[in-house]
Amino acid sequence: MATDKNENLMEKIVSLCKRRGFVFQGSEIYGGLAGTWDYGPYGAELSHNIKELWWKHFVSSQENIFGISTPTLVPEAAWKASGHLSGFTDPVVECEKCHHRFRADHLEDKKVCPDCGGKLGDEKAVNLMFPVSMGSSGDSVAYLRGEIAPGMFLNFKNIIDTIHPDLPFGIAQIGKAYRNEIAPRDFLFRVREFDLMEFEYFVRESDWEKYFEMWRSEMHKWVERVGINKDMVHELEVAPEDRAFYSKRTIDFEFDYPFGRKELYGLAYRTDHDLRSHSAGSNVDLSFFDEESKERFIPHVIEPSFGHGRTLLAVLVSAYREDVMGDDTRVYLAFKPAIAPVKIAVFPLLKNKPELVEKAREVYKTLKKEFGAVMFDDNGNIGKRYRRQDEIGTPWCVTVDFETIEKDAGVTVRDRDTGEQKRITVEELVSYVKEQLAN
Amino acid sequence: MATDKNENLMEKIVSLCKRRGFVFQGSEIYGGLAGTWDYGPYGAELSHNIKELWWKHFVSSQENIFGISTPTLVPEAAWKASGHLSGFTDPVVECEKCHHRFRADHLEDKKVCPDCGGKLGDEKAVNLMFPVSMGSSGDSVAYLRGEIAPGMFLNFKNIIDTIHPDLPFGIAQIGKAYRNEIAPRDFLFRVREFDLMEFEYFVRESDWEKYFEMWRSEMHKWVERVGINKDMVHELEVAPEDRAFYSKRTIDFEFDYPFGRKELYGLAYRTDHDLRSHSAGSNVDLSFFDEESKERFIPHVIEPSFGHGRTLLAVLVSAYREDVMGDDTRVYLAFKPAIAPVKIAVFPLLKNKPELVEKAREVYKTLKKEFGAVMFDDNGNIGKRYRRQDEIGTPWCVTVDFETIEKDAGVTVRDRDTGEQKRITVEELVSYVKEQLAN
Repeated sequence: MATDKNENLMEKIVSLCKRRGFVFQGSEIYGGLAGTWDYGPYGAELSHNIKELWWKHFVSSQENIFGISTPTLVPEAAWKASGHLSGFTDPVVECEKCHHRFRADHLEDKKVCPDCGGKLGDEKAVNLMFPVSMGSSGDSVAYLRGEIAPGMFLNFKNIIDTIHPDLPFGIAQIGKAYRNEIAPRDFLFRVREFDLMEFEYFVRESDWEKYFEMWRSEMHKWVERVGINKDMVHELEVAPEDRAFYSKRTIDFEFDYPFGRKELYGLAYRTDHDLRSHSAGSNVDLSFFDEESKERFIPHVIEPSFGHGRTLLAVLVSAYREDVMGDDTRVYLAFKPAIAPVKIAVFPLLKNKPELVEKAREVYKTLKKEFGAVMFDDNGNIGKRYRRQDEIGTPWCVTVDFETIEKDAGVTVRDRDTGEQKRITVEELVSYVKEQLAN
Repeated sequence: MATDKNENLMEKIVSLCKRRGFVFQGSEIYGGLAGTWDYGPYGAELSHNIKELWWKHFVSSQENIFGISTPTLVPEAAWKASGHLSGFTDPVVECEKCHHRFRADHLEDKKVCPDCGGKLGDEKAVNLMFPVSMGSSGDSVAYLRGEIAPGMFLNFKNIIDTIHPDLPFGIAQIGKAYRNEIAPRDFLFRVREFDLMEFEYFVRESDWEKYFEMWRSEMHKWVERVGINKDMVHELEVAPEDRAFYSKRTIDFEFDYPFGRKELYGLAYRTDHDLRSHSAGSNVDLSFFDEESKERFIPHVIEPSFGHGRTLLAVLVSAYREDVMGDDTRVYLAFKPAIAPVKIAVFPLLKNKPELVEKAREVYKTLKKEFGAVMFDDNGNIGKRYRRQDEIGTPWCVTVDFETIEKDAGVTVRDRDTGEQKRITVEELVSYVKEQLAN
């Protein structure tokens, strides 16, 4: 039964996302471009809020993590040095009969085509990066980055030379990456264009275990802060034989998606491999001079890495709620207020009473000036409006009724999760919402 | 003399950007990738603040503009329908001797190579979009978008179906676009990868002039709000023969860059051309049903378009100041507080007095919790620290001195632009800064 519920859950979430304007298939009117997704108004807002919260948590509230933003086009030489040109591949097999292609590591039986039963050819390593020819006759080749980390390593010297930080320090970035997935699937999980949120934390070799543990703990705090159900997150200690050869420890943070337990985040101790490789590949000294010990060395790196679309999907799965009420089911998204696309919806009790509408507009304007993401809705009966706001995860619905205008009795505020209503002044509401958003 | 000053100005700005961690050449340690730029810590913060302010100005403070976020990979069919596949080109000529290539429209003499004096070949139209092959053997072709507008048109029906807005309404987005420029140049002005900030405003045909004027005026307000010198912005009414064939009116907003007066923003009335083309190309009905008049029609479009890198460059040019003080010159960036990368820097007067440092750390933490973009600096004498903050455009420097700790006399706040200092309590400072940032 639990499995059934989960299978349905994915359909329900995809359908809600489309119906309510969170996520649409990319280029849908042209038949869709596989592995790309359009964020509609609420999805774009949710996506943005997750990025802002991540930046606040890991960058702007930190003292020694420096945010950067680097291009998605990176020259071939950098990918050669980092090993991506040879190693950033998926194993692919092709059916000799129907020519469909599959990820070899996703097949149980690697001999026979699951689509037509034909014979599968030999496994080939297919590079995941998209090459892009630049100049008017393609004189130089760049690749759309498959990871954002090289942007941080390529700017290590820039940060050292301009900011002069002591160790430990971090370089962070949120940005797009691209992968030529052979089989995009599972909604926002496996896609061809996506955002990553990541930082490289540079440490003395002897300190790596301490900071590995520090960020491990901080990642769990983030999981709760963004509103992912922590009971659905599981650490997977990656075995030595499954780790990248340079990594001395890697933990995958997996999430119980409706389609199975799969990777959400990663935490890796990458030794000094990246800086050393880029130093060799570029012939630029990427060492650090330690003023204290008067030693020069290449720092070691802890890398906490966060898929943005996977976060958004895990947040949706964690927030999805159904309240069965007799024949009826109330669906709502229990987003944390900080990431909810709309913070407050304001309703006049009745649409055809100008004095209610006027007062509600006034309340709306006050709240919108304060919080931005505030909606005015006078369409349909109150119950219908609540349902609409529930489905987009609006934490608070405010109604202006006759008591508001006749008795100066404040407004009613209805809580999304409990459905409870209480009467409150607009000033009290502003303080309350501010407090909730600061969490 | 003014010309000399301007030529120097560009060098000074590029040099300051590099020295202080705003902007570096993309992939610099690998020799640089032409037409790409890395934003360092202050540049990334400035870039982000400009986007946030634009979003607030044109999206979240509006009632009927809906923000979306769509992929940069868009299938060929969409570009065919929009006309980009045939028409999004630059005229290019190649020298038959040295094989250097040039934009034909940038050459005064189109016969002789400016590099070697060789004979130039015939002018060819070269498409500006980067093709990307998708799937494991390139079964489908997409293009990295050369403009972000198609994302809005492709989502017109999604917005209609999920949000049900009345006319007029807008669809907005901030996102990356790519152009295979033959000759990237002028720092952030002509690049291969850049962000655009844009919205499509859908109106009844009869209303176009009213809304064209409304957004024209709003664009000028934005120019002042973001801190671009309005005296350096000039409207250019684009002549009918220079407009796209479907546009009935276009105004370019040009800016006096140090390298000349060139395009900053654009405002175009695009008729119903885009929705009509995509409707024909996709075989999907992109009309609007007007509940009031009970009529079905294709809305017309006003498009205000803003280059993000060009905004950042115009902001830098507008903010750059030199105060000559005897032999010495004080350089500072007079950013509007809302976009300044660092809002406040906190100094202990002396680094070697633990009681000063402790109190300064306390003040720093209070301010950082409130504003995020706050820096602690105890490195070097106060004069040096002021200079450093001036060059990154920090509006306020706060010093904790002996009076702060001995007489509970508050802190001193020094204003970046006037250099004036006054004594103030931390609470007063918080209110003051909040007020300034709200503008």
